Amino acid sequence: MTAKEYPLAPAIRMAEIEPFHVMEMMAQAAQLEQQGRPIIHMEVGEPDFDTAEPIVKAGITALQNGHTHYTQATGRIELKQAISDWYQQQHQTTVPTERIQITVGASGALQMTFWALLDPGDEVLLADPGYPCNQNFVRLAGGIPVSLPTEAESGWRVTPELITAALTNKTRALLLASPNNPTGTVMSRAEMTAIATLCADHGIALIVDEIYSGLTYGVPDFSAVELTENPSAGRFVINSFSKYFGMTGWRLGWMVCPESFVRPLEKLAQNLFIAPPTAAQFAGEAAFKPQTISILEQRREAFQERRDLLLSALRGLGFHILATPDGAFYLFADITGFGVSSGELCKRLLNQAGVAITPGIDFSHRLANDYVRFAYTTDLEQIERAIAKIAPALKSLD
Amino acid sequence: MTAKEYPLAPAIRMAEIEPFHVMEMMAQAAQLEQQGRPIIHMEVGEPDFDTAEPIVKAGITALQNGHTHYTQATGRIELKQAISDWYQQQHQTTVPTERIQITVGASGALQMTFWALLDPGDEVLLADPGYPCNQNFVRLAGGIPVSLPTEAESGWRVTPELITAALTNKTRALLLASPNNPTGTVMSRAEMTAIATLCADHGIALIVDEIYSGLTYGVPDFSAVELTENPSAGRFVINSFSKYFGMTGWRLGWMVCPESFVRPLEKLAQNLFIAPPTAAQFAGEAAFKPQTISILEQRREAFQERRDLLLSALRGLGFHILATPDGAFYLFADITGFGVSSGELCKRLLNQAGVAITPGIDFSHRLANDYVRFAYTTDLEQIERAIAKIAPALKSLD
Repeated sequence: MTAKEYPLAPAIRMAEIEPFHVMEMMAQAAQLEQQGRPIIHMEVGEPDFDTAEPIVKAGITALQNGHTHYTQATGRIELKQAISDWYQQQHQTTVPTERIQITVGASGALQMTFWALLDPGDEVLLADPGYPCNQNFVRLAGGIPVSLPTEAESGWRVTPELITAALTNKTRALLLASPNNPTGTVMSRAEMTAIATLCADHGIALIVDEIYSGLTYGVPDFSAVELTENPSAGRFVINSFSKYFGMTGWRLGWMVCPESFVRPLEKLAQNLFIAPPTAAQFAGEAAFKPQTISILEQRREAFQERRDLLLSALRGLGFHILATPDGAFYLFADITGFGVSSGELCKRLLNQAGVAITPGIDFSHRLANDYVRFAYTTDLEQIERAIAKIAPALKSLD
Repeated sequence: MTAKEYPLAPAIRMAEIEPFHVMEMMAQAAQLEQQGRPIIHMEVGEPDFDTAEPIVKAGITALQNGHTHYTQATGRIELKQAISDWYQQQHQTTVPTERIQITVGASGALQMTFWALLDPGDEVLLADPGYPCNQNFVRLAGGIPVSLPTEAESGWRVTPELITAALTNKTRALLLASPNNPTGTVMSRAEMTAIATLCADHGIALIVDEIYSGLTYGVPDFSAVELTENPSAGRFVINSFSKYFGMTGWRLGWMVCPESFVRPLEKLAQNLFIAPPTAAQFAGEAAFKPQTISILEQRREAFQERRDLLLSALRGLGFHILATPDGAFYLFADITGFGVSSGELCKRLLNQAGVAITPGIDFSHRLANDYVRFAYTTDLEQIERAIAKIAPALKSLD
């Protein structure tokens, strides 16, 4: 071998890891903004609200008090206790702090879960459409992502039938997001119970992504921690401070894991992360205080108003959204009526209407061309302005 | 399959992932402290100093200004520019911001580097003794860690001869830490140049861990970014805000990568982390300001005084430390003169002397029984007190 081998090629696996296509959209939007064009952002999966004041204050106080050192690898016991109390209060369920681990965002929790769980070649069932990184997490851990093709007609629901049809002797886990990104679908207690039973019967792990929990509109906000009737030995519940609690930039999440995974996950946390960010952990404790929750509940109501406005306006413009999404802050819209591809429509709306949205390819290869995602992470006034600008841009497609 | 398959067993790889044994020591120390025993902590790889005031202030200001949202996946351009300026000023080297990525600690950088670089079965050469997580990072990415057995007699130096002897047609990378944890060994420009040339000649990547850079005592603080004479296409330089900059709890690091890895690493950052913590990034900018550096340089001088005191005292007590360690904040000491194993000695010093140190097993299986690591992350007064307590505890071994 000689120096001519440079530049080194990246690992083969890198060809399988897809970027977020929404990032390209954001880069193009930023370019237009630099040219002086105002852009309405409906592509970003991040609440427009700054972190609530009591949380920020707790973070500042922590820094002022010199809390700048490492914590335990799985996080501070005080924060675990606050989460356990929250489960008790919101879900009438006792979750021992030993089974709660604080993570570097829900991303850290997802990553560690797949590492701890998957042997090479193990299959993981994932709803399609779904959060794009999940497939990559599975691949990085040596697993094989298997899509469960959900349909608009059935409200994008993952059913026992879909799961059963996809089961093989290599199936190791099912990952279920409720509320779902990008569809906003929220699972009921009955649905989750049936699926948990199915997973237990087949000895596969059930990983429930509750990253958008708390952001539900008019339906019960069920958590899988409430499922005490099935063996909990194979259940992982993953949550985040980013969405309902509005702490995206703090990089803080948590998970509830089976007892047999407490130690393996702790070892991974020590090795991969050392510890979650310290000031964020102190701030996170304040997220559960009544005065914070009252702010967050106002924001939830604002999201609901936005959903109502945007859903009705988009339907009026010819976007097909069959079932009303009950959670998260996204609308996943069928655009086949417009006669252009998803990528093309996103480009037109950005360039002609100054509205940035996300093409379907980020969430489903199957539906890539036929769907787009709108995030209602911008206020009512902006949403109205967006609608007013989208309408003529769509007309030009005729 | 039935429910009897519960509890699910963790993935097979988890048996290979070792915990930090120092954590056990910390847990035992905490137990003694709860019983009212004062413990002197010399086991922790974390400066005792709180984060310097100007950095904390910048973090607080960022929070007050609402900087609580996601940043770009590879970090803020302003922080990249500050790092590039720092390289220019300290190392007279131009590093383009495009090749700098901000990461979730150096841990995030190490993780992403191995993901992006290793195909299954690729071998990575690692100095033994060395930082224990590195082997686990390599394993998680499907690679095989290969130890380079360095010796106290040669100042724990990694030499071209050691590397050449370990090369196979599966060798993909060499990871070199300077200053090294636990030995404190600092590589010279000449040594690093020779090794970089060797790596380039053999077409293998050179990953330089400079996590302790800035913490050198009386020797030049060379950085591998200065190596412009060899092809840089295969070189990764990893650094951290944790040690010299004293920002452990903020979880912030960075890397300089080859041009061909900018995009693959960005994809990994998007998927694995979304973004590094935001307030930490704003705080990190203040780390390079003259008033901060003047504080950090005072701390560096304090570390040097501690090293001098501890080194001479430990040698006086019968610990063998051949070469004087020139960097980091550790002393790796041969304890074979005491006639007990490393684990046993650590237990005795904790229980009899109230001094917590780290057993050798965290850094080397080969030397596990014969070495311990002292961290001088505690002040002179505490170090003197520790020495006074260790002396009689050692006597009791006779």
